[in-house]
Amino acid sequence: MELSTLIIEKHVRAALEEDLGRGFDITTGYTIPAAEMASVQLNAREDCVIAGLIVALSAFSLMDAEMDITIHTQDGESVQKGDLVAEIEGPARSILMAERVALNFLSHMSGIATLTNAFVKEIEHTAAEICDTRKTLPGLRNLQKYAVAMGGGSNHRFGLDDAILIKDNHIAIAGGVDEVLTRASLQAGHMVKIEIEVDTLAQLEEVLEHGGAHVVMLDNFAIDDLKAAVALCDGQIVTEASGGITLESVKAIAETGVNFISTGQITNSVRATDFGLDSK
Amino acid sequence: MELSTLIIEKHVRAALEEDLGRGFDITTGYTIPAAEMASVQLNAREDCVIAGLIVALSAFSLMDAEMDITIHTQDGESVQKGDLVAEIEGPARSILMAERVALNFLSHMSGIATLTNAFVKEIEHTAAEICDTRKTLPGLRNLQKYAVAMGGGSNHRFGLDDAILIKDNHIAIAGGVDEVLTRASLQAGHMVKIEIEVDTLAQLEEVLEHGGAHVVMLDNFAIDDLKAAVALCDGQIVTEASGGITLESVKAIAETGVNFISTGQITNSVRATDFGLDSK
Amino acid sequence: MELSTLIIEKHVRAALEEDLGRGFDITTGYTIPAAEMASVQLNAREDCVIAGLIVALSAFSLMDAEMDITIHTQDGESVQKGDLVAEIEGPARSILMAERVALNFLSHMSGIATLTNAFVKEIEHTAAEICDTRKTLPGLRNLQKYAVAMGGGSNHRFGLDDAILIKDNHIAIAGGVDEVLTRASLQAGHMVKIEIEVDTLAQLEEVLEHGGAHVVMLDNFAIDDLKAAVALCDGQIVTEASGGITLESVKAIAETGVNFISTGQITNSVRATDFGLDSK
Amino acid sequence: MELSTLIIEKHVRAALEEDLGRGFDITTGYTIPAAEMASVQLNAREDCVIAGLIVALSAFSLMDAEMDITIHTQDGESVQKGDLVAEIEGPARSILMAERVALNFLSHMSGIATLTNAFVKEIEHTAAEICDTRKTLPGLRNLQKYAVAMGGGSNHRFGLDDAILIKDNHIAIAGGVDEVLTRASLQAGHMVKIEIEVDTLAQLEEVLEHGGAHVVMLDNFAIDDLKAAVALCDGQIVTEASGGITLESVKAIAETGVNFISTGQITNSVRATDFGLDSK
Amino acid sequence: MELSTLIIEKHVRAALEEDLGRGFDITTGYTIPAAEMASVQLNAREDCVIAGLIVALSAFSLMDAEMDITIHTQDGESVQKGDLVAEIEGPARSILMAERVALNFLSHMSGIATLTNAFVKEIEHTAAEICDTRKTLPGLRNLQKYAVAMGGGSNHRFGLDDAILIKDNHIAIAGGVDEVLTRASLQAGHMVKIEIEVDTLAQLEEVLEHGGAHVVMLDNFAIDDLKAAVALCDGQIVTEASGGITLESVKAIAETGVNFISTGQITNSVRATDFGLDSK
Amino acid sequence: MELSTLIIEKHVRAALEEDLGRGFDITTGYTIPAAEMASVQLNAREDCVIAGLIVALSAFSLMDAEMDITIHTQDGESVQKGDLVAEIEGPARSILMAERVALNFLSHMSGIATLTNAFVKEIEHTAAEICDTRKTLPGLRNLQKYAVAMGGGSNHRFGLDDAILIKDNHIAIAGGVDEVLTRASLQAGHMVKIEIEVDTLAQLEEVLEHGGAHVVMLDNFAIDDLKAAVALCDGQIVTEASGGITLESVKAIAETGVNFISTGQITNSVRATDFGLDSK
Repeated sequence: MELSTLIIEKHVRAALEEDLGRGFDITTGYTIPAAEMASVQLNAREDCVIAGLIVALSAFSLMDAEMDITIHTQDGESVQKGDLVAEIEGPARSILMAERVALNFLSHMSGIATLTNAFVKEIEHTAAEICDTRKTLPGLRNLQKYAVAMGGGSNHRFGLDDAILIKDNHIAIAGGVDEVLTRASLQAGHMVKIEIEVDTLAQLEEVLEHGGAHVVMLDNFAIDDLKAAVALCDGQIVTEASGGITLESVKAIAETGVNFISTGQITNSVRATDFGLDSK
Repeated sequence: MELSTLIIEKHVRAALEEDLGRGFDITTGYTIPAAEMASVQLNAREDCVIAGLIVALSAFSLMDAEMDITIHTQDGESVQKGDLVAEIEGPARSILMAERVALNFLSHMSGIATLTNAFVKEIEHTAAEICDTRKTLPGLRNLQKYAVAMGGGSNHRFGLDDAILIKDNHIAIAGGVDEVLTRASLQAGHMVKIEIEVDTLAQLEEVLEHGGAHVVMLDNFAIDDLKAAVALCDGQIVTEASGGITLESVKAIAETGVNFISTGQITNSVRATDFGLDSK
Repeated sequence: MELSTLIIEKHVRAALEEDLGRGFDITTGYTIPAAEMASVQLNAREDCVIAGLIVALSAFSLMDAEMDITIHTQDGESVQKGDLVAEIEGPARSILMAERVALNFLSHMSGIATLTNAFVKEIEHTAAEICDTRKTLPGLRNLQKYAVAMGGGSNHRFGLDDAILIKDNHIAIAGGVDEVLTRASLQAGHMVKIEIEVDTLAQLEEVLEHGGAHVVMLDNFAIDDLKAAVALCDGQIVTEASGGITLESVKAIAETGVNFISTGQITNSVRATDFGLDSK
Repeated sequence: MELSTLIIEKHVRAALEEDLGRGFDITTGYTIPAAEMASVQLNAREDCVIAGLIVALSAFSLMDAEMDITIHTQDGESVQKGDLVAEIEGPARSILMAERVALNFLSHMSGIATLTNAFVKEIEHTAAEICDTRKTLPGLRNLQKYAVAMGGGSNHRFGLDDAILIKDNHIAIAGGVDEVLTRASLQAGHMVKIEIEVDTLAQLEEVLEHGGAHVVMLDNFAIDDLKAAVALCDGQIVTEASGGITLESVKAIAETGVNFISTGQITNSVRATDFGLDSK
Repeated sequence: MELSTLIIEKHVRAALEEDLGRGFDITTGYTIPAAEMASVQLNAREDCVIAGLIVALSAFSLMDAEMDITIHTQDGESVQKGDLVAEIEGPARSILMAERVALNFLSHMSGIATLTNAFVKEIEHTAAEICDTRKTLPGLRNLQKYAVAMGGGSNHRFGLDDAILIKDNHIAIAGGVDEVLTRASLQAGHMVKIEIEVDTLAQLEEVLEHGGAHVVMLDNFAIDDLKAAVALCDGQIVTEASGGITLESVKAIAETGVNFISTGQITNSVRATDFGLDSK
Repeated sequence: MELSTLIIEKHVRAALEEDLGRGFDITTGYTIPAAEMASVQLNAREDCVIAGLIVALSAFSLMDAEMDITIHTQDGESVQKGDLVAEIEGPARSILMAERVALNFLSHMSGIATLTNAFVKEIEHTAAEICDTRKTLPGLRNLQKYAVAMGGGSNHRFGLDDAILIKDNHIAIAGGVDEVLTRASLQAGHMVKIEIEVDTLAQLEEVLEHGGAHVVMLDNFAIDDLKAAVALCDGQIVTEASGGITLESVKAIAETGVNFISTGQITNSVRATDFGLDSK
């Protein structure tokens, strides 16, 4: 997967404008002469999986066309504390003005990739995959989902319009599993998948009996119920466990045989990875 | 502090559009009849400090003008797990379409307020205050800084244009503390404050000798050095400790007598607070 | 399917601004007194299937909050030449200023629904469905696809990001059917469907052998080849015929037993339906 | 006439973003290696008049700065089925990602130019000119009017603000021809032309008697009435025939001696011209 | 002429966002309780012609839906120093937050109307009219031209696209008056007027001889030359005097018999009119 | 201080789009062949201080990447009538299309710098500084404040969010000087300055007694009162005189010993400086 440059630049431009406010970096403008050049290194200050490197570096090149950038790793790679990630050379003012925005993107996106990767590692002895949710931070969904992919995770739907996920509230308001599945199957385009959330094994049986769903979300199932559910589904429908997944619980869940494990934590509760920009 | 409605609606509208993508919630549109009404409760699923309630509820009213909303708490208030936060009544489709965006704002902003408040509580026996940084998530800076204030924190500058913060890189490139302070003092407007970062007590002495700075950032100082720094400053200049602050270390730092303690963690490494939308 | 108000208003606002240019309707401003009220009827001037009625009427209410609008039909309904579609009452200036934009949306979207419906009627004795493509007019894709649905058609993917459609060029550049299907299956999320285009029965066999695709696009197949392809697929994979479909040829194609028939004509080669705004 | 690059890029960027959605071409990203290069030909698949070539090719260069493009014809030129229009060489992923947007612009705009040119050819033995209307597709008016010019047509006003066109509804609401012409003449700037629509010869006489209009629109006049109208006007005022113009009827209308013939069909009821992107 | 609400709100919203910056009025938010109401009067502090009143008052209603506004005059009216212009009642915070933006629009637009009106009064004994130019402040052209109209002036073209004005540089580069007039007449649509700038009487004769222009701009002509030019034109072509027009020189210029006198001063060199918002 | 390129280009792009309207310069497009090149000089037509040169020249390079530009002076420099400011060489059409926008920016911004500089010169024998206000033209605040700096002035706050300025209305509504200063001091961040407006010496005493303010605005004080106020403040608080400042009155005010003198005139009542673009 590759983020298109058009999309990257839109995000970065907006972030630079947010930081510049009315258009001036008064600290840099007052203290650094316009002709001053600088040469800096972008270093990892902790072990992590890289994500958002091109996004981050775009902050420098969008701020100033004169930047000379050398890249030493790439998205999806694991780096160690102290590793050199990239070198940037150019007008000192522009480097200083773009620095924080660059680090904010890189720290957040690498934080996501690193956390996702920790989940992925926990379950790599199974066939299960980690995937994300729509529990993302407003305005950042595509960057966050891209970072999940860089960490080895899989992407769930991107929004309300690209796949059908029938939740408990839909079932309750519409009047039951049969009603929602009938309506959805009838109207869904042939390029659209249908997932339905179930809270109990009984509800799962209703879903299987009715047919029409491609994926079933097993919400907050106990480990034994997950096993029973997997057995019931018997490979006829993709299974996705969700609800309160943690780094501690994920292994046992994966070992039940579910196909996917989704968690909002990897996008809405992420610790920023530490990077630094150091003078050479 | 109050977020203006114009700004809130711009954020929420953008988030709804991000989630709607090409404009359809195919799940809801296919499974829920247009005439269906719903009545739901927004509940806290864990103890927290509320922030972003108006932002979150705007998702419902911007999606549909027909919403009837009752608010049971407000930003800055502490609520307990299980507390009723708000009630929403209106067209079922619109409630389901706005739900995730509403929760995403509320969970993130309350997460910030709650974490900030945990820091604030650690140091409430001292005169020190917690403040934020520019280590924010792209596009969300004003919402995040507002949430910090709701958690009892104080706001540092909002961007590159509203205050001067001379960092180590500025000093290095410009050629020393004297140069940067002379240049900054000369050019700064009379409504602008000047802060300068120092890494050693010796550098602090240079700053104090030169004058012109309103605030000094003591970056990564050991506890004893912080104490010595506070003594040196002797109330003539505001002190701000920064660098690697944690919930564990903050108390000892505050007890050194510094005025402010700044941390990026409260905006870039936040755990989402859990809220739920339940049918009545 | 329902277009969200947020999306509708964004389209209509932009269209009104396009028509207003620098902000003035100089004809209306110069010739009609501000206090003048008007009452008009929106009539169908030919038989058609309605689509975009709410979109069109939004032009009046966005231009002026004082509009009083009565709706006499709805999207998806068939109306006859001369039928009353809606009544609008309000300030004369605002009605005249919004008229052309309203009619432009309604005529184009109803044109799509009507043409789609003509295709649908041709094949209603079969199980085949008509669907659209990405051959849409720039900026109008979601409105056009909505109109296709109102005409009884089904929607193919909305863009490059919501489903996988492997075209002949992908196969050629990537080095063959096996390569592309292996790569796509491995990386596609579990909520994403995979379609692959084939140009010959031999290629179709390759696809079926390899597995992993949910839909196969039979591009420019002769009628006999379509029949053979349907037989080969034998219900194991969804079939979609495409390429040079016309109102004349669609019936024979549908009778081959294919599941879907996609055509760009219903979105990129549409005749505007004639509506008029008449004084009461 | 020349479309400015600023305007072209705004349209194309928006169209690429519409197609990319959340920013990914998942088909291309999953199946084509990043380093793969491609070389393709843009060919006409039917006879047509070219319009929008620079617009279309901008899709490739905006998607990727590394594109190498050679142009073999230009807007306004007639090409034959099979003619080579342009060659594009560059990263395979970017070519595949931009292809559909490029073709959508070129097909639509060339469709307009080709249809306009068919009208123009029908009347080239007369002095009459074909012109467009405000019956355009929302958001595309300037591109459509440019394409009309490329087909040999003339442009009517671009919006509500750049010329005065008094329609039947204005006359009815304002209280008659005298009122509207007096008001409009009095207030119109000296760089603005005034046109008035008439439905009968009697109304035309009123207009001529009053003076002040530069152009008269003869709406839905029978051929004999058009001749009588032209005689009445006697070169003192520009005449424009409108209403239900078709390729079949246009010749007889032009032969009445009217100066302009306006039709919405050339912008709102256009068949896309067929182009293809073929591997070399 | 009437500015459409859509356009007004776009301008005002942008100006409020410019002033709010990151979204907070920290002065008001910190010092004024949320529940406080206020009632204020908008007063003229000098004699002037009003323009932009609705624009200005929109600042209050866009900031807060709860505003109660009473209007005591209207655009185009003359008011005396001390006159009550409008009354605003509503939440104190919102009134204070919108005040400066409201006054900035009203002061600037009334400044334009007042200055324009001073020119108009100087020449009201003649048939000449004052008109504006494209020498406007970036982003404000439509508001400024509207204000010119409110002051009794006439509007020249709004931009590069709505009328033809052939300047000296066009003539020089294109190779002479004949060339430019031939090309322009041939290509101009029938709703477009053509103006040409001349610097000498000799050049004027060339223009008259060639024909095809509707308006001639007499640039920097001495009074006697203007008289000669008017005589030469003899009512066959509209005359516009331009270049270095001042309040002192305009009377003599108007008395030469020219039809229009254009000046950039009324839009690019305007003194703000003084208004105040006073507590009742 | 330096305007970032990102911000400059946003302003200039918007201004070019405003002037281009629907995207065409019909004069230039019709009269100048596409291949024509031109070489022009940008000259000062009166003595002035330059501001906005890079902004103005961006109009040419944004319109056409092929521009060759040579700069002969820079922002902040004084030039004489007739001085060569810059040379531009490139496609004639693009130069003609960008000319007016370039001149509009340069004339306005240099007008501000020149007027500011006239104020600065009047008081250069004192220690007082001239500063601006929020009385700016909507949408142009950052460019205007930058121009003030280029003229030798100092910048007051940029908006409602970056500094606290407690005005008379805040004091009145909040219930007095003590209330507002207590509330503001308590809540203001440590990087924010607090200014308070006073109308009388008695109110000034209240402010000094209470403490907490960094700057006091002495609004409409008579000369003697200003002297008394300066004596009272005695260097403990920064003083700013405001209200009805003119080029005639500013010297006497500066000689009272106030630190800053603020005036809206330098941003809202500016005469455009005259520049011309002449063929070489």
